Amino acid sequence: MTATLTPTLELAFDLIRRPSVTPVDEGCQELMMRRLAACGFEVEHMRIEEVENFWAKRSGGASETNGPVLCFAGHTDVVPTGPLDAWQYQPFDVRIDEDGMLCGRGAADMKGSLASMVIAVERFVADHPNHKGAIAFLITSDEEGPAQHGTKAVVERLRERNERLDWCIVGEPSSTTLLGDVVKNGRRGSLGCTLTVYGKQGHVAYPHLAKNPIHLAAPALAELAAEHWDHGNDYFPPTSFQVSNLNAGTGATNVIPGELKAVFNFRFSTESTVEELQQRVTTILDKHGLDYHLEWALSGLPFLTQPGELLDAVAASIKSVTGRATTPSTSGGTSDGRFIATLGTQVVELGPVNATIHQINERVLASDLDLLTEVYYQTMVKLLA
Amino acid sequence: MTATLTPTLELAFDLIRRPSVTPVDEGCQELMMRRLAACGFEVEHMRIEEVENFWAKRSGGASETNGPVLCFAGHTDVVPTGPLDAWQYQPFDVRIDEDGMLCGRGAADMKGSLASMVIAVERFVADHPNHKGAIAFLITSDEEGPAQHGTKAVVERLRERNERLDWCIVGEPSSTTLLGDVVKNGRRGSLGCTLTVYGKQGHVAYPHLAKNPIHLAAPALAELAAEHWDHGNDYFPPTSFQVSNLNAGTGATNVIPGELKAVFNFRFSTESTVEELQQRVTTILDKHGLDYHLEWALSGLPFLTQPGELLDAVAASIKSVTGRATTPSTSGGTSDGRFIATLGTQVVELGPVNATIHQINERVLASDLDLLTEVYYQTMVKLLA
Repeated sequence: MTATLTPTLELAFDLIRRPSVTPVDEGCQELMMRRLAACGFEVEHMRIEEVENFWAKRSGGASETNGPVLCFAGHTDVVPTGPLDAWQYQPFDVRIDEDGMLCGRGAADMKGSLASMVIAVERFVADHPNHKGAIAFLITSDEEGPAQHGTKAVVERLRERNERLDWCIVGEPSSTTLLGDVVKNGRRGSLGCTLTVYGKQGHVAYPHLAKNPIHLAAPALAELAAEHWDHGNDYFPPTSFQVSNLNAGTGATNVIPGELKAVFNFRFSTESTVEELQQRVTTILDKHGLDYHLEWALSGLPFLTQPGELLDAVAASIKSVTGRATTPSTSGGTSDGRFIATLGTQVVELGPVNATIHQINERVLASDLDLLTEVYYQTMVKLLA
Repeated sequence: MTATLTPTLELAFDLIRRPSVTPVDEGCQELMMRRLAACGFEVEHMRIEEVENFWAKRSGGASETNGPVLCFAGHTDVVPTGPLDAWQYQPFDVRIDEDGMLCGRGAADMKGSLASMVIAVERFVADHPNHKGAIAFLITSDEEGPAQHGTKAVVERLRERNERLDWCIVGEPSSTTLLGDVVKNGRRGSLGCTLTVYGKQGHVAYPHLAKNPIHLAAPALAELAAEHWDHGNDYFPPTSFQVSNLNAGTGATNVIPGELKAVFNFRFSTESTVEELQQRVTTILDKHGLDYHLEWALSGLPFLTQPGELLDAVAASIKSVTGRATTPSTSGGTSDGRFIATLGTQVVELGPVNATIHQINERVLASDLDLLTEVYYQTMVKLLA
């Protein structure tokens, strides 16, 4: 069967059969680096703590140091397989099934995209060896894990050396039903917090000697849950607040507990700042006279890529390759795009259909990856040819 | 030392040295039954499931079948000792220490009271063999445990045979600082419930696809916590509502949970009924449009013994023996008095100081037990002589 594979699928096979469960890379990056070096990239291996990363860059001509930089970004790590006996085919025994689906862990998230990027770049460089500006790759093996020593850390190094990134295409599987139907042009921010409300433990038969933190916290939680944080904007839905965990009590039915813990999370639009949200939570808790402690954890700031050169080029390429109009969206969870956007970069996420990501029997339509290669190629033509 | 003991303390020693940790009786009841039979009681051993109980009754004269019945009630079981090495003296190695304290598990709760009852009755019967009405004993070995096959079950048998109990003195340690300073003339009811609020589990990034039961329940819990259930009355504080346990969440910080569980408890006065409280909770939950389930558990109905023959006789006896005025109270937890009161009986709890009950180094002033014997004796004189 390998004999009949397209270049994109052949590389996808090579990547998927390596069991690179986060944060292990299993040689995926070595494979990519070798091919990029072969077509003129300067490749920089960046191992940070246990995490493999690389940064690669190719300038189109000696005089082009000030031209625009287009970066492809992604990750070689995949999420754990879950129970092996639940898989129809083993997760790293990559294959194309009778429905034409490329099956294996990482097929959709995101080794398929990585293969398309490399093949598209090889073709583009061959066709346009003296392209404008520069093409770059920022690849990590820790996107599915803690994500501390991956893209985030590489971006800090790039920032220190004043590396400029004008445009970035992240290979995250953005499509929902058909290839290219959705691209992500931003993401909401994520702000977590653990709230502890202090009361005074006692016996339910003697409530006057105790202070029930459940009773004290309930009206404040009700108000937080009912609050409208902002109205969102053209690109973002309104900021949402959700309590994920709430716990109080000793287990005994005759004891008033001494404290209550609530874990909550904001997914926030560009209409609210971290400081504003923190201040408003504090104001509500203070209004209810609570004795409390807040432990904040910022997972990511929101970012937004407004319509412009990158989004236009991507949309036009999708249209020309697939015939369909794409929908820019900022919905869903966080991605490494949030780190890259802090460099002032226009960031768009564009990848295959995400219906099976993180699931048993992850798979993607094999022919979609060839289309994706073509979309990436066309985008480069529009921006750098 | 045994040579110098009063009859009450001698019997207290005999009872305390038997390690009758609930629901074991260890022969305590046999000892009491033998002595009561010896002074004219008809004694009925009632073993119900694993629990030892007895019922004993002595009529003052053949013609006195319709006279008033005064019952002494109590339990021979004690709570577990806790770590033995924490005790100054071993819990069943009964002794009177240098401060005159009778030391041992059950000294206060309530083998001291049992000894005082038996000795008081022996003296009263000797002095007034043809007393009015009848004296009875209702003794169990399962007051500190599940309390299902103890007093509650014996009361059901008495109800079936139309046994009449006019007055009952329960030997629970009611005194707080000095013997007789407080008697209990009632207890609040206890009504427990587990509330489950149903939502729909989902990802915090997609709240529109989920229903957060924490957000839905918070305003209802706030309203329940703020509700005034009744104003109490001359004998009872207002009914109180307390949530003891509140839990929701999967542990993950990015998942909206599917349900919330709240365990709450009413301690209720005679101004509210079980049905009213249940209805009012339902009304509040319905008002908030919740999808929920309630699992009710009634631990005990409230009871009240208003001033009258029994309370007057007890108060006057305390006054004449100790010189102090007693305070009737309905505060604190539940006791077996709640079961006996359902027979229409006036119930008063009168026993020694409760400062060390259920604790390591349980103890009671030895001389208080002799005073307690005298108080019980005087009460019988006032009611049955």
